[in-house]
This record gives sequence, structure tokens and C-alpha cells, in this order.
Amino acid sequence: MKIGLCQINTIIGNIEYNKSKILSGYKKGVEAGVDLVIFSELALCGYSPQDLIEKDEFRQAVILANIEIAEQTNHVGLLFGTITQEFDNIGTGVYNSAVFCSDGKIQFVQNKTLIPNYDIFDEVRYFESAKEVHVFKFKGEHLGISICEDIWNDADYWKHRLYERDPVQRLVDKGSTVLINISASPYHYGRREERREMLSVLTKTNELPLAYVSCVGGQTDLVFDGASLCLDKKGRLVKIAKNFEEDFIVFDTETDSKALNDIEGTFGEEVLNSLVLGLKDYASKTGFKKALVGLSGGIDSALVTYVAVQAFGKENVHVVMMPSEHSSEGSIKDSEHLIKNLGISSETISIKSLYNEFNTVLESSFVGKERDVTEENIQARIRGTLLMAISNKHDYLLCTTGNKSEMAVGYATLYGDMNGALAIIGDIYKTKVYKLVDYINQNEEIIPQNIITKPPSAELRPDQKDSDSLPPYELLDQILQLYLEDRKGIKRISEIIGDEILVKRILKLVDRNEFKRRQSAPVLRVTTKAFGYGRRFPVVQGWRS
Amino acid sequence: MKIGLCQINTIIGNIEYNKSKILSGYKKGVEAGVDLVIFSELALCGYSPQDLIEKDEFRQAVILANIEIAEQTNHVGLLFGTITQEFDNIGTGVYNSAVFCSDGKIQFVQNKTLIPNYDIFDEVRYFESAKEVHVFKFKGEHLGISICEDIWNDADYWKHRLYERDPVQRLVDKGSTVLINISASPYHYGRREERREMLSVLTKTNELPLAYVSCVGGQTDLVFDGASLCLDKKGRLVKIAKNFEEDFIVFDTETDSKALNDIEGTFGEEVLNSLVLGLKDYASKTGFKKALVGLSGGIDSALVTYVAVQAFGKENVHVVMMPSEHSSEGSIKDSEHLIKNLGISSETISIKSLYNEFNTVLESSFVGKERDVTEENIQARIRGTLLMAISNKHDYLLCTTGNKSEMAVGYATLYGDMNGALAIIGDIYKTKVYKLVDYINQNEEIIPQNIITKPPSAELRPDQKDSDSLPPYELLDQILQLYLEDRKGIKRISEIIGDEILVKRILKLVDRNEFKRRQSAPVLRVTTKAFGYGRRFPVVQGWRS
Repeated sequence: MKIGLCQINTIIGNIEYNKSKILSGYKKGVEAGVDLVIFSELALCGYSPQDLIEKDEFRQAVILANIEIAEQTNHVGLLFGTITQEFDNIGTGVYNSAVFCSDGKIQFVQNKTLIPNYDIFDEVRYFESAKEVHVFKFKGEHLGISICEDIWNDADYWKHRLYERDPVQRLVDKGSTVLINISASPYHYGRREERREMLSVLTKTNELPLAYVSCVGGQTDLVFDGASLCLDKKGRLVKIAKNFEEDFIVFDTETDSKALNDIEGTFGEEVLNSLVLGLKDYASKTGFKKALVGLSGGIDSALVTYVAVQAFGKENVHVVMMPSEHSSEGSIKDSEHLIKNLGISSETISIKSLYNEFNTVLESSFVGKERDVTEENIQARIRGTLLMAISNKHDYLLCTTGNKSEMAVGYATLYGDMNGALAIIGDIYKTKVYKLVDYINQNEEIIPQNIITKPPSAELRPDQKDSDSLPPYELLDQILQLYLEDRKGIKRISEIIGDEILVKRILKLVDRNEFKRRQSAPVLRVTTKAFGYGRRFPVVQGWRS
Repeated sequence: MKIGLCQINTIIGNIEYNKSKILSGYKKGVEAGVDLVIFSELALCGYSPQDLIEKDEFRQAVILANIEIAEQTNHVGLLFGTITQEFDNIGTGVYNSAVFCSDGKIQFVQNKTLIPNYDIFDEVRYFESAKEVHVFKFKGEHLGISICEDIWNDADYWKHRLYERDPVQRLVDKGSTVLINISASPYHYGRREERREMLSVLTKTNELPLAYVSCVGGQTDLVFDGASLCLDKKGRLVKIAKNFEEDFIVFDTETDSKALNDIEGTFGEEVLNSLVLGLKDYASKTGFKKALVGLSGGIDSALVTYVAVQAFGKENVHVVMMPSEHSSEGSIKDSEHLIKNLGISSETISIKSLYNEFNTVLESSFVGKERDVTEENIQARIRGTLLMAISNKHDYLLCTTGNKSEMAVGYATLYGDMNGALAIIGDIYKTKVYKLVDYINQNEEIIPQNIITKPPSAELRPDQKDSDSLPPYELLDQILQLYLEDRKGIKRISEIIGDEILVKRILKLVDRNEFKRRQSAPVLRVTTKAFGYGRRFPVVQGWRS
């Protein structure tokens, strides 16, 4: 069987747009002479429409579009992800479905069985679980169709499973000759290899070929990397679609058998691509054409500016330098150097006069009080207000520049440098920021060397260094990763790090700064555990590790 | 059987604190000579600990405390909500449990069967469903113990049910003589009557008495109103605990039979109490002792200031007036009048010089551009920065003053008037703000009449009125309520309102302003659908109603 895998970039909720994407992809498949064209999970509504699904009007529009799509089909099969409804008196009656159409009609519907409800996934909120799975006969093959999570519960592969049921095993037992999985699988670094490895075991064990089609594109804080996979019945990866862009590939389940290798690029390449796509799609899907970054002279804003240039083109990126009395001369020079390297427009606004004026008008409020973090925050908030003003006036998308290490320990000013539409590197630890910059500079010096080598500083008081109040980033990031991604407790982290007092201090900072993160811009997710939607902690709580 | 219902205010995650609450409540019950003392759902960890549950160290600490609590018991029974673990190789292995102890040991555990996963509830993320329910024999009675949601699926009461299983019916069928439900039921206006009505049908139908114990207190954005209920086997409400405060009541399942009425106060009384408790507990549980409000002269900030005075005491509330060139003289006078009425401290900081300075430094950025909403936002952000500076310097909790109507249509400035730790009235429509103020003023004029009668204005440009860009609030709020709480679509709302163009415009505003709400302070929830945790929409999406 020849299957066309259509890897598309949808807009969540824009049913007309997604429908036309599906129909033009189908046409491409028909022209290529395939038997069947397949699209990703919830392709018609985008992943994930979240509470849009609770709107009756939205569901009705999707269901109508299901039929309209089916009406456009001929003898070539079309399988796409969408929602369907089956009301009885219990539960939501809404399903996450794979709809199979041909000859102008919906021929078969397979609902999703395993409904993920962890990390960023909230699907139990919306969807009922399929009561049963069925094999669908088409052009001589028995298609075993599953949806995303359905295929991630293989008893042969997993020591610990999340669900009792194994719908794919059931499809195999029912005589599938070809497996199809339609997914919406968010990217994090390493995820692609995980997919391949698991699917390879599954196809090899069951001696069945598999077409795994996913979506691509940025959806607010999530990035879908595409890389749809085709595996033969010996478990070999024989076809793969492009990373981070739309693609159409054809899988011949009988003849494709040449194994592919090296499907995951370097950390620098992959993660940079994911950030660029995430930012680019946030902008294009909301109508922003230009980006704005506050350039401090530090490495974070330099990296974010580079990402913005990749996403928007250099002619559409504008930066603002906002020196204060504490800004080093080096910072301005380094920024100017970067601006020249990137070929972008810039302006400089000193915050000195505004800072003085704030101090003046607050004088009577602050009588008898020492200078403290308040004054540092004022500077950050002046800058945040200036950036928002320029963004408002000129319709720039303001890029938030904070990294994950800072967000973790609260080393950022709410309503100040945390301002912006999207936290581009909010899931990248400081040490990883350096890695990305090294990758960017591998062939020529784009980010000036001085930005990389000088000690990190917020420059909010004289001679301030990050290392005044934080441990070296190598150590900090190690602690954070053990705590956040690896979910280790204080005891285990202290054993590994060998400094319980430090570990306690850092973990306390993380726990205490939930209130800031609750009000942060959405964070582009590139690890297994990003701040934001997939990490839910009470703001007010008394647990101390 | 004599059951002591212990209605306590826990701190999420503070296991030691909650444990001592449980033990001292138990002691009170022992002294009162009851047979059994009962506590609410997840009383030991607070509701809801959210992703704390995913921490192994946290779960271990809770499970250890379960045993420590049991060890303190004598012949009097103790039933409390907590988490337990039962690892097999499938699922989380974690349960939301009711643990029954006596004579120094855990005697019985009943896990929760129905795991809610809608609106603010995310329990499938953490908990497995009980495999079975069992009746527990104690002192001659057969106790049918259920947890919160378990009792909300009665086939006799609901036309549409969320779940197949009905654990309470099963407990009845298994011979229960007394029903017990331990809950954590968040407040919204009208909820108390709903609880009574449903439980009344259930107890009457099954001819069984019921002790329903809930918790009380503010937990970030949720308020639990207490009001634990006891119903006799004829479905009569015979005992009720206090609203919005801790309480201990004794229910004699055999002799209590005097029916109570009027358990829900007026909208003004109830909702005001819920806001005061929500703010008070946010502060006490995070360590804030003083509150700060930016006083504009409008009704929203006046109401919030009043709530702050109730929560903190007048000596701990400070307000700041920040007039601009667009502020009316009336606004200052009205604010001064309110300050006098409430007996609170205040200061006035003109933002004129700062506003001028922002315009000056931005002059070259704005060349050739018209004055627009940018300049209005600058004013709001200067005020937001001043308030945060005073809050930072003096450790005030900054109260956010925006109402639900504004948050809905985006009539608020991100990083400006949206600043603050908690959006006190973010779930109160403007028309309801007036209702609350009427209630406050019922005996004497506390909120000056002029604040109530003058037309609402943001005073960000000359002679600005809210009605310049928004329909009258009566109409706006009706549209919003139909859309947000009643979940009607554009077609139905247009039929009701009779102005499709207006409805379309308002719904578009709501949909487009998700990006602001994503970065808002937590909103105190007092309706069935508040902005924040219980309402999840993609920021980037193309659905237009």
C-alpha cells in the first residue's frame, strides 16, 4: 500500500484554514498516485484547541467540516484527526477521532482509546475513551489505526505503563496488516530518538509496517517538530519527513526498506530550529510582522535577538538599548557590535532621567528606608514600560529574554524584564544558552565573543554580578535539572551535589517564586518539563523540600 | 452515632501544620464525647497540592504523617482525607483517600472513585480511581464513606451524568446505615443551595443520614466556604457549620431532626465574605501583613480597598492616589472621602512629571506617529511601577483592582493596572461590583455616593468614559455571562440580545485578549467560571465565534 503522509502546520481553531490544508494535501496525494493520504491528530482543529472544545458552536463547525472534507474524496483514502460526538447520557460524549473518508463519505471512525492527562496534556477534560478498536479493510489491507498516546503503552517496551488497555496490541491481534498512528507530538530535545526507538521495537515485535504522521509548527508555547516516521516490518526506519517544516512523503509499505540513521541533529541545531519555529509561528498566527528585543549587552538578549532575526528576517527586528548609570561601557559596545553583525535597526534610550524622576517622586514614600531590590526593580520596570510603549506604538512583538535558570530562582523582575508575548528561551538553562551561542558562532563570530566571555550581570547596581547571589551556573543548572526535569528530592540532590545548604537555598528559591512564573509570558517548551502549562504548582503553599 | 465534623482551614503542602490541625480537632471531638471525628478531602495536604503530588518526597511525608496521626487515636474514630499509594505497574499508583483510624492504627482506607477533571479540577493528572468501595463497620453502624465527587453522580438526581459508576449507590446497596462524604468544595454564589438540594434528594431516596464535611479557607484563587452539612434520613438539613470560618459541629445521626432553612445569604453578604476570606488567607499563608491599593477614584478600587480593610484591618491598609493631567478633581476628592470613611493611610504621587519624561525620552521613537492607546498604557504602567515600588519597599501585598467585565474585553493594561498578587474582584462583573457596594452601604455611606453615581472612566485621556468604547455595562455583562458562564454561542446570544454586530464585537474582544489574561494575577473565583486555572484557551488561535 502506498501511503502519503501529509505533515501540516495548522492554526488552532481556524477550521476553514485547516480544512483547506487537508484538502490541498489530499489533492497532492491523489496526484502522487497513493492509495491513502493521512494527517495528524486533531488536524482539523489544531492541537490543542483546549476549552474551544467545550463550545457547542465550535464542535458543530468541526463536525460539519468533517463531512465537507469527506465529500471531496474519491477512491483514494483520506484519514485525518478531528473531533466527533456521540451523545449518550454519560460523560462529555466528545471523542478525539481518526476519520477515514473515501468516495465522498466518511467510511470509518476510530476514536482514541488512551487519553493522556499529564504534563501539558489535559485530554480527559474533553474526551471520552474509545469503547473498542476495529481494524478497517481498505484496498486489500487491514488497517490498524491508532491516535498518538494509543501507541505509547506497549507492554513489551515499557516497564511501567500508564494504562491497562493496549489498543495497538488489540489491533494487531485483530489482524492488522498495516499500522497507522496519527499524532500531535510536542518537541523536546531527544524526543525524536525516543519515538523511533519505541516504534522500532513495536513494529519489529509485531512484524508490521507503521506510518506515523505528526504535525509541525508552533502553537503558543508548544513546538511540533514534524519528522513523521515510516517503519518497515523489521523495525527499520525507512522514511522520515522534514524537521520543523511542512512536508509530504510517500511510504510504500511493501517496497520501502532502506534503513535511515542519524535522525536527531545536535542540541544546538535542533533546539535553535525549535525556538525559531515557535517564535515565527506565534507571530504569523497572531499577525505580528516585526519583533522587538531589549538588548542589555548580555548573552540572553543576544541569543533572543538572533532567534528573532531567523524568525522575522533582519529587516523586521528592532532592538532597544536602555543604559543606566550601572551599565558598563562594554555592554553598549558589545550590543552595537551584535547589531552590526546582525544588520538590524536599533535605538538607544537612557533610563537615567526616568530613574531619577522615579526616585524623586518616591522620595517621601521611601523616607528612612535603605536602598534595596526595589530600586533594581524600578530600573527593570522602566525598561519594560519603554519596550511595551515602543511595541504598542509600532506593532512589534516584544520578545521576553529571560532564561530558565533565572525563571527558576526568580532572578527576574515581574512587569519588568519578564514583559513580552513569548518567553523564547524560558526553557533553556543558562549553561545551555552558551551552548546555543557556540553553535551559532561555529563558522563565524555572530554573537560577539565579549558577550560570551564576560561574567553575567543584571547591571542593576554598581559592579553587580550574577555570582554575587547565585552559585556558578554549572552548579545551579545541575541542581535545577535534578529538581525540575529529573524530579529528584532534596535528599538525593544533596547527595549528588554534596552541599545540602546550597541545595536547600536553591530549592526554596524555586518554590517561592511560583508567583512570578504564574504571571510570566508563555514559555517555549524544549525540554521534558517547562515552566508554564505543563507544570502546575499552587502559588500559596507551605511545602518546603 | 455521634459524629464530630471538623471544618478546618489548611495550608496546602504544610503537612506539619495540617497534621496538628487534625490532631487538635480530633482531641476536641474526643472531649465532646463523639464516636467519630471527620475531616475534609485531602485535609492533610490541603486542597489541591497540584504537582506537589508528583514529588516522591512529598508523598512519603504525607504517608508517614498518615501513620503518625493514626498512632494518636484511641477508641474514638478519626476519618480524614489524605493521599495513599499502592504501586502496581500501571498508572500513578496514587489515590485520593479517606483514612479511618482508631486504637492507634489505620483500620480502613476508602479511595475516591470518581476523579473530577473539568473546570478547576485536574485530579486525573494525579489520582487513580478506586477499584471498589466497601462499607466499614464501626460501633454498630455500617459506614458508607465517599469522597467529594463520588456523591455527585446520583442517577436519581442528574439527567446527564459524568461517570458510569455510582459509588454511593453501591455503598447503599452494600448495606450502609450512615453515609459520610468528605469534600473540598470550592465556593461560588449559589453553590451551597445546590449542595443541599442534591444531598437532600440523595438522603431522602435512600433513607440514610449523611454527614458531609468540607474545608474552609482561601487557597490562592479558590475559596472554600465551609458550611459542612448534616442531613437526616428524611432528607432534612439538620445541622450546618459556619460559613467562611473554621467550625466544629456534632451530628447525632439518630436524634438530630430539626430542619434548617435559609442557608445561603444575600449575594452581597456571601460574595463579600468570600472575597475577604480569599484575600486574608492569601496574605496570612504567604506572610503578608499589609495591603496596598492604587485608588483611582473609581468604584472598583474603592470596593477592593474596602475588602482589604476587612481582610487586614484598617491600620494595615495603605492607598496611593496617582493623579495625571486627565484625572478629574472629583476623583481626588472622592478618594479622600473614602480614605476618611475607612480610616486608612494614604499618599498622593502625581504621575505628570514621569509621564512627561516618558514622552520626552520616547520622542524620537514616536516621530510621525499619532497619539493612541500607547500613551494610555504608559500612564497605567507608571502607576503599576509606582505601586510595585512601594509594595517592594514596604512589604505590602498589592491588590489588583480590575473587574471581570474589564478582564473579559481586555479593558486593562498588562503590566499596568493588572499588576498585583491577587485579582480580588476579577470574577465580579461591573454590574455586580455596584451590587456589592450597595450592600456595603446599606446601613451607612462607606463608599461615597459620588463614586457610585459618576460614569465609569479610566481617565487616561481627556473626558474619557468607558461608554465611549464599550456598551452600557448592563448589556455588556449580560453578553459576557451568556458567553462565559452559560457557554452560549454567538447565534443564541445574538437572538437574546438582538444585536449581532455588537455581540460579535464583544466576543471577538474576549477571544483576542486571552494573551493578557494569561499573564494576569490569580483571580479569586466566585462564579461557576472564573478567568484563570479553570478556563483554558490557547493564546494563539484562529476560532472566531
